[in-house]
Amino acid sequence: MFDATFQRYLTMIEQFLAQLAWDKDILSQSMYYSLIGGGKRIRPVLALASAEAVGGNPEAILSAAVALEFIHTYSLIHDDLPAMDNDDYRRGRLSNHKVFGEAYAILAGDALLTYAFELLADPGLGQPERQLRLIREVAVAAGKVGMVGGQVADVAGEGKTLTLPDIEEIHKAKTGALLTISARLGGILAGGTAEQEQALTDYAQALGLAFQIKDDILDVVGDSETLGKLAGSDLRQGKSTYVSLLGLEGAGQELHVQILKAQSALKPFDEGAIFLSELANYIEQRQH
Amino acid sequence: MFDATFQRYLTMIEQFLAQLAWDKDILSQSMYYSLIGGGKRIRPVLALASAEAVGGNPEAILSAAVALEFIHTYSLIHDDLPAMDNDDYRRGRLSNHKVFGEAYAILAGDALLTYAFELLADPGLGQPERQLRLIREVAVAAGKVGMVGGQVADVAGEGKTLTLPDIEEIHKAKTGALLTISARLGGILAGGTAEQEQALTDYAQALGLAFQIKDDILDVVGDSETLGKLAGSDLRQGKSTYVSLLGLEGAGQELHVQILKAQSALKPFDEGAIFLSELANYIEQRQH
Repeated sequence: MFDATFQRYLTMIEQFLAQLAWDKDILSQSMYYSLIGGGKRIRPVLALASAEAVGGNPEAILSAAVALEFIHTYSLIHDDLPAMDNDDYRRGRLSNHKVFGEAYAILAGDALLTYAFELLADPGLGQPERQLRLIREVAVAAGKVGMVGGQVADVAGEGKTLTLPDIEEIHKAKTGALLTISARLGGILAGGTAEQEQALTDYAQALGLAFQIKDDILDVVGDSETLGKLAGSDLRQGKSTYVSLLGLEGAGQELHVQILKAQSALKPFDEGAIFLSELANYIEQRQH
Repeated sequence: MFDATFQRYLTMIEQFLAQLAWDKDILSQSMYYSLIGGGKRIRPVLALASAEAVGGNPEAILSAAVALEFIHTYSLIHDDLPAMDNDDYRRGRLSNHKVFGEAYAILAGDALLTYAFELLADPGLGQPERQLRLIREVAVAAGKVGMVGGQVADVAGEGKTLTLPDIEEIHKAKTGALLTISARLGGILAGGTAEQEQALTDYAQALGLAFQIKDDILDVVGDSETLGKLAGSDLRQGKSTYVSLLGLEGAGQELHVQILKAQSALKPFDEGAIFLSELANYIEQRQH
């Protein structure tokens, strides 16, 4: 059931991406290369599942859900640049700037971010007031106090020994904010109640931390081939992670605590949130 | 009268910028450094004047007008990067990455672009349907078929001999699209008619071309100190410009044709558009 629903969401997302006008010009190719780079689509899936959890139709919010993947993809392209993390590989493929060069990688990121807001302002989404509020929330989550701010803190923290509250702060901004708005987005656009919005927020915040802890664990125990990137890179870079601070067992326990926290936040939904609950298990158990 | 109105708009814009929360963190400082870098504020001024031309209150659309300056500023920061135009100076000051480093320059650009959409979705602007349409139009004008696309064409055209239609095509996308939506923005948000929107569009398209032709002329006849950048750089880089293709006199004539075209588009406004008409003269005569 979980797998079938996940697949149904993925098919919706891939079909939406494929039907957009991708020209043969280098900018479009650069954008498309990274968009179809084998991501797990967690953000749009969260949005679609949240819409369904509040009784909405996921098809009706699809353009906004896909906008989240555009924002996530732009951030990966820019993070991989030589001036930032200088990563040659991403998900087992060459990173964008290794294929298209730095100039087109920067511009593809810029164009993806801009395109995301075009999708979020889609006239078919209905309820203009809710939509405007959502656009503000996405901009805040993706901007200087959210995702971009988190990347700044990450760059600034390089080579320093960080405490657990430090890395939680960074991850809440760098990955947590966009994951949280992803779950909220579905609830907001599909007409959820304030209580439901809050439940989705609590769920996604715990899920976001769990996601990051699992990332840190996989960096130590994962297989490079399955991961699509070199395992152990945090360790070699001397990065402070959940594993370096809590040990492997401690990190695993903290991961499980966050998963349970995410699932207990879903209580107001009863049956409607079975997929979201199982998504948390999926994130705890994922191997890449 | 023109000077007083221009000054009134500039004061509104600078006050709005100053009252935003600029923290002491490096990202905020990097964003602010480029925002207050002595730009002419043509885009927000166009928006405010267009709002007034259709009988609206410019104060009421100020956050959206300033958003255009955020988008313009982000594009300058990214264009100046070593991987792009590799400019060390901008308006007589060090470019952003020379002061803050490449990573923070890229991230400041990303944050400015994101912040622009937060401002465009400001709840105080009223008329949510119009506002959503505007957000879509701004995203298109700033994105892959607009400003970013124009920068791609500019990068791709380096070292090649271009024809007049080629460079017109590049400028229409790279600078024209955002200038055009700047004028439209004021009209749309202040409740202009479809006829007024069209007149503002025609005006701004001609103004945008005039602006670029004047840039090309100043690069040849301008004084480096007044320009804030080294004159003659187009020539040294072997760039095709209006001057290289039409000669100095021919470019001056074409500039004047576009100014007259811009002014004649304003006929439907009668007295209401005196400022916009004089703004065209200002652009024809500017020395930097």
